Amino acid sequence: MTEFELIRRHFTRPAPNAVLGVGDDAAIVRPTPGCDLHVSTDMLVEGRHFFADVDPEALGHKALAVNLSDMAAMGATPRWVTLALALPQLDEAWAQAFARGFFELAAAHGVSVIGGDTTRGPLTISVTIFGETPQGKALRRDAANVGDDVWVSGELGLAAAALQQKLGKLPMVLPDACLQKLERPQPRVALGQALLGLAHAALDVSDGFAADLSHILARSGVAADVWLDALPTHAALLAQGDVLRACIAAGGDDYELCFTAAAADEAAIVAAGQAAGVAVTKVGRIVAGQGLRLLDAAGAVVQLERLGYDHFA
Amino acid sequence: MTEFELIRRHFTRPAPNAVLGVGDDAAIVRPTPGCDLHVSTDMLVEGRHFFADVDPEALGHKALAVNLSDMAAMGATPRWVTLALALPQLDEAWAQAFARGFFELAAAHGVSVIGGDTTRGPLTISVTIFGETPQGKALRRDAANVGDDVWVSGELGLAAAALQQKLGKLPMVLPDACLQKLERPQPRVALGQALLGLAHAALDVSDGFAADLSHILARSGVAADVWLDALPTHAALLAQGDVLRACIAAGGDDYELCFTAAAADEAAIVAAGQAAGVAVTKVGRIVAGQGLRLLDAAGAVVQLERLGYDHFA
Repeated sequence: MTEFELIRRHFTRPAPNAVLGVGDDAAIVRPTPGCDLHVSTDMLVEGRHFFADVDPEALGHKALAVNLSDMAAMGATPRWVTLALALPQLDEAWAQAFARGFFELAAAHGVSVIGGDTTRGPLTISVTIFGETPQGKALRRDAANVGDDVWVSGELGLAAAALQQKLGKLPMVLPDACLQKLERPQPRVALGQALLGLAHAALDVSDGFAADLSHILARSGVAADVWLDALPTHAALLAQGDVLRACIAAGGDDYELCFTAAAADEAAIVAAGQAAGVAVTKVGRIVAGQGLRLLDAAGAVVQLERLGYDHFA
Repeated sequence: MTEFELIRRHFTRPAPNAVLGVGDDAAIVRPTPGCDLHVSTDMLVEGRHFFADVDPEALGHKALAVNLSDMAAMGATPRWVTLALALPQLDEAWAQAFARGFFELAAAHGVSVIGGDTTRGPLTISVTIFGETPQGKALRRDAANVGDDVWVSGELGLAAAALQQKLGKLPMVLPDACLQKLERPQPRVALGQALLGLAHAALDVSDGFAADLSHILARSGVAADVWLDALPTHAALLAQGDVLRACIAAGGDDYELCFTAAAADEAAIVAAGQAAGVAVTKVGRIVAGQGLRLLDAAGAVVQLERLGYDHFA
C-alpha cells in the first residue's frame, strides 16, 4: 500500500460543504457572506498529549474535539478542518480506527475534512479548524467587564484526576466519567453558540481553569475573585484533599467553557445552558485590578502550587 | 522562560490583515467578498523532510515556502498562515532563527501569521495556509484538455541532486544553486497569479515531476507525452547520466509549477512567465488516453525506476 492509497482509503471522504475537497494542491471553500472566519490550530504529540497505547478511535475523537472546543469558545459554528498526521508506520487497523473516531465526531458537528497531509515520523497530529460567526460577534478573551459573573460549564478536574491515576499518583477508584472525560471530551459547541450576544469574554479550559481564566483577566485588564468550593466537579472528587483540589482548579484537559456575563443576565445564561444541554455554574466575579484570587469557604485566599499546564515545564 | 513567553517572544507579530491575531482561542479574519478561500496544509518532520543539522533560518523559510507553493499552484493570493511546532527543547537561538526565516518570507508575500501552537516533542512543523482567488477561477488539477501544451517553470532536479550529494550518493561538484534550491526554494506565487484565466490545469512539483504531472492526468482523464530532453535544468546537471536524469524527472523538492494551457496561448504563457520573472518551458503535450509517456530524443519511451517520492516507501 502506498502513501497515496492510505490517504485515499481512510482519510478521503465527501466534503459536502466544500467547493473542492482533498486531492488538489489546496481545498477550496466558499465563506458565508457577512461572517467572520475563525481559525485555530492544535498539535498533539505522543507521550505528551496522549499515551502510546491510547485507543486510536478515542485519539481520533479527541484530536478533533480539542479543536472544536476552540470554536465553541469563540461562539463559532465549526465548518471545515484539515488533518496532518505523522505516523511511525503504515498500520492500517490503527489508521482506520483513528479515522473512525475523527470522522464520526466531524459528522456529528457538520464539519468537513477538506485537506491534510500524511508523512512518516514520530506520532504527531496537527489539526486546523475553521468556523464562522456573524461579523464582529465573536466571544473574545478581551471582553470581560468589572461586575461580570464568572461562569464555567460542566465539571472540572475529571480528566486531570484520570491522568494522575494513569501516572500512578492517585490510589483511589475513580468513576468512569473521569477516563471518559480524558479520552473523549465533548466540546461545548452548542453552548458557545447559545452564548453569542449574551456572554462577554469566553475561552475554553484546556490548560487548567486558573491559568485559563487568568488569560481572560490579562487581556481584559481586570481581576477576578473565584470561590474554590463553587467550582463544579464530580461528587466523587469532592472533599478528597489537595491533589484533587489542584486537579479541579488547575488540572487541564477539561474542555469546558469559562465565560463572563453581566450579573443581570444570570437567568438567560442558565437558560442558554439548558438549551445546550450542559450545566453552567457561577463560580466568581470580575473585579477591578489584576490577577486571580481563589477564595476558600471562609473567604481566605488559597495559593495553588501551579495554575496550569506548561508544555515546557 | 515558560512556553507562553517563548511563543510571545518569537512567534507573535502584528497581523495587519487579521481582525484578531495570535492570543485568543482562534484567530479571526474577514474573507474578501466574492472570493473563494483556498486552504492547504503541510507537515515537515526531522530526518524525513530535513536534516537535524539544517540551518534553522533556512528551515523557517522552507516550511512556509512549500505552503506558498501550494497557493501558487492554485493561482491564489496567499493571505494568512498558522504554524504549529513541536520542539525537542527550548532553544531560544534556534527559535529566533527559525522565526526570522519564516517571518521574512511571510512579509515578502504579505502573509500574516494568525495562529499557532507550540509543544515539546520530536521536531515537527505543521503549517496551514490560506489564500484567495475570485470565485470559480482557481487553477485545478482536473482541468487539462487534450491538445494542451504541458509547461514547467524554472529548473528541475537541482534540489534532488543536492539531496543525493548530502546522502553521499553523488560524487561531483554541484553548483551552489542546487543547495540553495533544496534549502531556500522560491515559491512561484506571482507566476500562479499571472496564469489565472490563462492556464488550464496546474500543480506544484514537490514529489517529482513525473509523479506530480501524473496527478493532473488522472484527475483530468487524459494522457501526456513529455520530451525528457526538454525538461529544464541547470547546465551542470545536463548530460550527467541516469542518476541526474532521475533527479530531473522524478527527484522532488522542486517547488516549480507544472501546468497546461491551450497551444494557441503559447505567447501569452511566455509573457506571463516574463512578467513574473521566471522562465517557463514547454515540455510536452496532453493527448487522449491515460498515463504519462516520457520520450527520449529519438521518440522512444523511457522507463523510470520510480516516478516520485513516497513517504512510506
